[in-house]
Amino acid sequence: MALGPGEDRRRAGRKPSLDPLFQLLGSDLDRVNQLIVERMQSPVALIPQLAGHLVASGGKRLRPMLTLGCARLCGYTGTRHIQLGAAVEFIHTATLLHDDVVDASDLRRGRDTANAVWGNKPAILVGDFLFSRSFELMVSDGSLRVLEILSRASSVIAQGEVLQLMTQYDLHTTEASYLEIVQAKTAELFAAASRIGAVLAGRPPEQEEALDRFGRNLGIAFQLIDDVLDFSAREADLGKSIGDDFRDGKITLPILVAFARGDKDEQAFWHRALEEMDQRPGDLERAIELMDRHGALAETRSRARAYAAAAIDSLSIFDAGVARSALVEAAAFATERDS
Amino acid sequence: MALGPGEDRRRAGRKPSLDPLFQLLGSDLDRVNQLIVERMQSPVALIPQLAGHLVASGGKRLRPMLTLGCARLCGYTGTRHIQLGAAVEFIHTATLLHDDVVDASDLRRGRDTANAVWGNKPAILVGDFLFSRSFELMVSDGSLRVLEILSRASSVIAQGEVLQLMTQYDLHTTEASYLEIVQAKTAELFAAASRIGAVLAGRPPEQEEALDRFGRNLGIAFQLIDDVLDFSAREADLGKSIGDDFRDGKITLPILVAFARGDKDEQAFWHRALEEMDQRPGDLERAIELMDRHGALAETRSRARAYAAAAIDSLSIFDAGVARSALVEAAAFATERDS
Repeated sequence: MALGPGEDRRRAGRKPSLDPLFQLLGSDLDRVNQLIVERMQSPVALIPQLAGHLVASGGKRLRPMLTLGCARLCGYTGTRHIQLGAAVEFIHTATLLHDDVVDASDLRRGRDTANAVWGNKPAILVGDFLFSRSFELMVSDGSLRVLEILSRASSVIAQGEVLQLMTQYDLHTTEASYLEIVQAKTAELFAAASRIGAVLAGRPPEQEEALDRFGRNLGIAFQLIDDVLDFSAREADLGKSIGDDFRDGKITLPILVAFARGDKDEQAFWHRALEEMDQRPGDLERAIELMDRHGALAETRSRARAYAAAAIDSLSIFDAGVARSALVEAAAFATERDS
Repeated sequence: MALGPGEDRRRAGRKPSLDPLFQLLGSDLDRVNQLIVERMQSPVALIPQLAGHLVASGGKRLRPMLTLGCARLCGYTGTRHIQLGAAVEFIHTATLLHDDVVDASDLRRGRDTANAVWGNKPAILVGDFLFSRSFELMVSDGSLRVLEILSRASSVIAQGEVLQLMTQYDLHTTEASYLEIVQAKTAELFAAASRIGAVLAGRPPEQEEALDRFGRNLGIAFQLIDDVLDFSAREADLGKSIGDDFRDGKITLPILVAFARGDKDEQAFWHRALEEMDQRPGDLERAIELMDRHGALAETRSRARAYAAAAIDSLSIFDAGVARSALVEAAAFATERDS
């Protein structure tokens, strides 16, 4: 069924938001959150302390929301989505803990990172614990199909993270490589989290595939905007310093666009700052100015919108209704968000 | 069936070894090794490079050997033990990669550690990859029971590693806490790897339990000897520097025994070196001398022998034969080994 005219809220002039999704699924999400708190417990006191610090830090819970929302879209009426939503969030949380160690990040969502508070060692090991817990949750759910989807996603994520490491400081990274990394490190879990909704409801393969495409395109859009916000957000909204990617020498699309469109002098600047990692005061400001000059952030946001549109399109085979509208608006939100 | 008189090789005067187990299962192990190499491949070239460095570094493959040996003991004649042996080794390898980062170790098995060669970041992320791969292997095997055993083991291991971190630099660690850590970080995977043998062969719960006890006691014995060798091995045999635990402020049984049996001056030495971490030239030599004086290493080795004996006892319900003899000798080897 094609999308109804009222479903794309951008047309109505109201800023798209996650509110409809949270209104629809708020009580399910409460149960996911409760289960997350229960299952991060351990007799080893540091584990719930450290995990709780991150879990309570106000993430959007976007990935479990995809599982809940897609299950609802598919008419699923059981309770397994709660457990699997928690499993998906644990995989994500484990990844964040390890990411923050790898990037030596100090701030996430406006709070000190776990590695900043407790050091790298417990952050690595608690990440391993949450990852194991996520598999325990899946095993107690008992679906080999779900285990297959999420174990594959986990291994793709890890490969994406390593690939990202290998393109650091390398301005010859192609857009194709960049997109491959985004697909792996971010979009794969969005795709898996969404696909599970159809699996739970026993929907046919083409609906599984459609939800996979929905999640995958949404995940790419989401990451592109993350990369934009790293250069343009208000720090208070972002909950971390801007310019983290620049300081880490991470080659994201805004940088690739500005580099490709830059003249010789500009390219020399990018080389010095990101390949030689010889960064000086004022370099971040100059990077942002060059991005402005060449429309690099606007270009990236426009690409993100195209991925979000593809995500929305892939929902057209599902029945119209509140669930579909809420997911459509979530996809629109992903590209218009400020934080 | 009780153990036959010929089964405990120590009585025959010959030094116990792993040879009978390797002779019995060599071709199975070759297939496990082949599968390990296949399944650590990735389009991201750094992953097989880094994983291969560790995988090829001549570990004993003790954990997959337990799966293979216990499957054989239970009369299993299929091929699933190959895949599950590889899964068990991947969990172990992932743990080693993260351990070496956490301990900032430079040497393992006589070679530079992965973190020493490639840095911490890829070592963390490739650990995550191998951990995910291990679950992919289990999922493709398709037994929820095995997944349950190994996902639980993984989460217990991570909890043990965190607990170990929390007792570092703390001479008030009790022997009970120390044993709890050893159970979790080492013995749990030995137990799980062994138990799977009975699961594969569809043996009744009491045989599963017996193999779990075998693996668990063997794992404790193995770790106790590791802790002894850290103070007493010839470095060429150990493949790493001796005194690593001491330098890391890791509180192991040899230290707890020497501390408990020491006089005031000696206790002050242990406090300075391990709690204040004010270590000076000659401290390691003094630590070893104090351990000698109080028989701390002999005491630890003697405890290890008791655990190995318990491991051997738990095999008595299985039929005598080459498989049982080889496992008995492997348990004896664990406490008599020099490296």
